[in-house]
Amino acid sequence: MPDTISPGFEKLLSEPAYCQISTLMPDGSPQITQVWVDTDGEHILINTAEGRQKERNVRRDPRVAVNVVDTADAWRIAMVRGRVVDITTEGADDLIDQLAKKYLDVDSYPNRQPDEVRVTLKIAPERVNAIGLD
Amino acid sequence: MPDTISPGFEKLLSEPAYCQISTLMPDGSPQITQVWVDTDGEHILINTAEGRQKERNVRRDPRVAVNVVDTADAWRIAMVRGRVVDITTEGADDLIDQLAKKYLDVDSYPNRQPDEVRVTLKIAPERVNAIGLD
Repeated sequence: MPDTISPGFEKLLSEPAYCQISTLMPDGSPQITQVWVDTDGEHILINTAEGRQKERNVRRDPRVAVNVVDTADAWRIAMVRGRVVDITTEGADDLIDQLAKKYLDVDSYPNRQPDEVRVTLKIAPERVNAIGLD
Repeated sequence: MPDTISPGFEKLLSEPAYCQISTLMPDGSPQITQVWVDTDGEHILINTAEGRQKERNVRRDPRVAVNVVDTADAWRIAMVRGRVVDITTEGADDLIDQLAKKYLDVDSYPNRQPDEVRVTLKIAPERVNAIGLD
């Protein structure tokens, strides 16, 4: 049952907020990584590369948890349980550049590897626990 | 196989850093919450109350993932996989006051509930992925 992204949460996702995503390792244990984050208004969007641990994990088990927090205010935060509903290369190269603009204020993602394939994880929130995001 | 807390990671843990812990729900899906954090030099210490979701989760399955990050610098960060090796009331009331001092600069934790029992989760790190923590 999808939960919605409120206007306040959408605003936080449009800022250079900290975001942590937890995925499940092959043995079912949790893994956590800090990532850049964006939204299309309906999904939480995270950009990664094919073959990374978290990408392999969500292909096996799409269940994730995501934390998004204002770097300057611990009380503007959303803690989310959800599911990766799509893993796509479509628009993924553009998205990593947009994220580099938002987080680093540069026009092009500076750490791109020649042989990597960027993918976007689209996460449908199923339960959003938001604080300070009216 | 425990991993160690480096001097640089110990320093970060002594600061009012952001910390997120991921635990496992009864159905095996990941849950994430942002928490205050401390260390005894060997374990990551998180203080919670009996009956909270994450406390119930780690009593069932002690496997956790923990992210600790400098609020002002995304490149001072540790991403940890580990295990809760002890859940104890011993010193837990003192620890929540110490955490309130560190994070809020007050002498006593202001949100204590009359009927809650504070507990400390002691997490043994098994794999530490640290950046910028020499």
